Amino acid sequence: MPGMQSAAMTLMLPAGSATDPDGQSGSATLLSDLVLRGAGSRGNRELTDHLDSLGLQRASSVGVHHTRFSVAAVGPRVLDGLATYGDIVRRPHMPLDGFESARDLGLQALAGIDDEPRQKLLIKLREQYLPWPYGRNNMGVAKELAELKLDDVKKDHANRYHARGAILAIAGNVDVPAWKAAIEQHFGDLASGPAEKIVTKAPPGNFLHEEQKSEQTHIGVAYASIPETDPDYYVARMAVEVLSGGMSGRLFTEVREKRGLCYSVSAGYSSLKDQGSIICYAGTSNERAQATLDCLVGELHRLTEGVTHAELERAKTGLKSATIMQGESTSSRCGSIAHDWWMRGRLRTLDEIKDAIDAVTVDRVNAYLKKHKPGPFTTVIVGPKALVMPA
Amino acid sequence: MPGMQSAAMTLMLPAGSATDPDGQSGSATLLSDLVLRGAGSRGNRELTDHLDSLGLQRASSVGVHHTRFSVAAVGPRVLDGLATYGDIVRRPHMPLDGFESARDLGLQALAGIDDEPRQKLLIKLREQYLPWPYGRNNMGVAKELAELKLDDVKKDHANRYHARGAILAIAGNVDVPAWKAAIEQHFGDLASGPAEKIVTKAPPGNFLHEEQKSEQTHIGVAYASIPETDPDYYVARMAVEVLSGGMSGRLFTEVREKRGLCYSVSAGYSSLKDQGSIICYAGTSNERAQATLDCLVGELHRLTEGVTHAELERAKTGLKSATIMQGESTSSRCGSIAHDWWMRGRLRTLDEIKDAIDAVTVDRVNAYLKKHKPGPFTTVIVGPKALVMPA
Repeated sequence: MPGMQSAAMTLMLPAGSATDPDGQSGSATLLSDLVLRGAGSRGNRELTDHLDSLGLQRASSVGVHHTRFSVAAVGPRVLDGLATYGDIVRRPHMPLDGFESARDLGLQALAGIDDEPRQKLLIKLREQYLPWPYGRNNMGVAKELAELKLDDVKKDHANRYHARGAILAIAGNVDVPAWKAAIEQHFGDLASGPAEKIVTKAPPGNFLHEEQKSEQTHIGVAYASIPETDPDYYVARMAVEVLSGGMSGRLFTEVREKRGLCYSVSAGYSSLKDQGSIICYAGTSNERAQATLDCLVGELHRLTEGVTHAELERAKTGLKSATIMQGESTSSRCGSIAHDWWMRGRLRTLDEIKDAIDAVTVDRVNAYLKKHKPGPFTTVIVGPKALVMPA
Repeated sequence: MPGMQSAAMTLMLPAGSATDPDGQSGSATLLSDLVLRGAGSRGNRELTDHLDSLGLQRASSVGVHHTRFSVAAVGPRVLDGLATYGDIVRRPHMPLDGFESARDLGLQALAGIDDEPRQKLLIKLREQYLPWPYGRNNMGVAKELAELKLDDVKKDHANRYHARGAILAIAGNVDVPAWKAAIEQHFGDLASGPAEKIVTKAPPGNFLHEEQKSEQTHIGVAYASIPETDPDYYVARMAVEVLSGGMSGRLFTEVREKRGLCYSVSAGYSSLKDQGSIICYAGTSNERAQATLDCLVGELHRLTEGVTHAELERAKTGLKSATIMQGESTSSRCGSIAHDWWMRGRLRTLDEIKDAIDAVTVDRVNAYLKKHKPGPFTTVIVGPKALVMPA
């Protein structure tokens, strides 16, 4: 990325919520905190001080398949930090007091979900909709987290912090030969364990009302789409953009602008390797909740009738514009190429994405929508009253 | 910004929450929605469609002094959109149905605050801490918003959507002569009204417990700092960075890592033209709330004893790193230069910021901290139980 001073690194390890050991939900999230509490020659405080002294902005998160450590800073400093990430992954101290502190914070975070009805809705929707264990809450289950022992997570670290299925991506101001040598030095001999085979079970249900005394009702609707690796992927994406891209998206104009039913409504596409999904969300007053759900589901069905040329052109321009802007951020670009490698086993160039968007036609979108009627739906409601799914 | 394909525009109009007409709190926010519902030759739907057809990512927000419209897209498209922003500012249709819909959404958003205890805390803290009317909630007051009439906001539009005190900033891939000509064409004859003089009153109090049944207690503590235009600004900023910059910041290590009291704790600097502020936040379990407040206030007092050389060096590296990364985003850079123009009447270069950070010494920081002891504090608690401010 010429002209950039910054660089970003994304390190994905095969320790996602889906492979948390049975009865130990939340183990990957706990580990992602614990390994940062001292590693290699540095204790807890020294490690944090050292990474901050390099000016590294960093984050860690746990997804379905991976624990992800993300770092961004002025280019050479990111490379300087690599040896320490080698320590974090391979030689964490995992002290008992750090373990107890991380577990306590995890339990607090879980208890706090009741104060965050929107977050609660999205967690419950994934649990209901996705095949188990993909739908697991990455924060874990309070009872299991409370009973976790340090020895359990040490075993889990040995089992899941390895190179098989791990991905390291870099973007921006990077000296590639220097990076290759440093990766070889710090990770070259890292053990390759067998990739864990995930056996899935059917999701638990298709409707849940989670009663909560609140001023707002939070509504989630999910249904299946094609995966990102399907040849029709960009066709399906364009249909979602017509539904909810930009402010001219149908959900925004129909539910929010025209009918004033709620101030927050959206639909988004996401994908696991073998399953794509459309996840819709609306937050609204308790009185308007049923009308909002009716209107939302009505718009999902109306998509089957097709999109217009003008809608598609706006959707294409919007997605290309967003792609160009994300391509100008080293952190975004790094996250994208790590995702590409996981999902496709190769990197898409920005031009390839642009060309693929340009190649989508109204006929292809409308043929796709006719063939892929929306539903069956999984619906979750967080609020004082249950709602009725429209027929 | 060489190498960028994107550009960003920030348009700030002198219609902030502090100048909402008496008895019409929330008028600026309502206007910022209403003016987008049709303008110039385009009705509501046509206007939204047109801006999306240019691929413009856009946002609007209302601060203390300004209503801000932000736009980003591929460079030439942002310029293409300027004429339409001329319409939005100067020739909005402000239809009655759009007014009613915008007012309803505003009332819904206000009601929804009860479901967002963290947001509620920050609103209440500003109300208690800042001189009135700077501390006003930009979302308004439900009773006043409900009684607003279309004629009121039309009058308000005529009074506050003018050029005196307005700022238009652009950054990224911009053709400056073309922009100058277009701005002259669309805004050159825009009326300059007198800048509204704001008379302030003392803040209402220094302690508030907002009772709320919740799993978590949300704690806010605010106190005065020097304004951004003070020659010691970077010295004061460095002290805040030591407190809460990066993960080695004192609040994060003491309150979160060492004592495990909460998973979210931070302090930040913000500034009006004549008053800087330090705003601290912690979200914690109800049982640990008092210990968290004690520990937080203890760290604020401990700053008076001074910072170490190593702490200052980390803080400097962290802030320079963040500055460089923000400087690589056209949207961030555009927001920064608009803010600079408002605050300082000139633009700081990235090198100037870097040099000013480098010039801060431990002696200057420690002399500053000795002279500016923290307090008096304004404290707000949102949660089931009141807490006691430590002596």
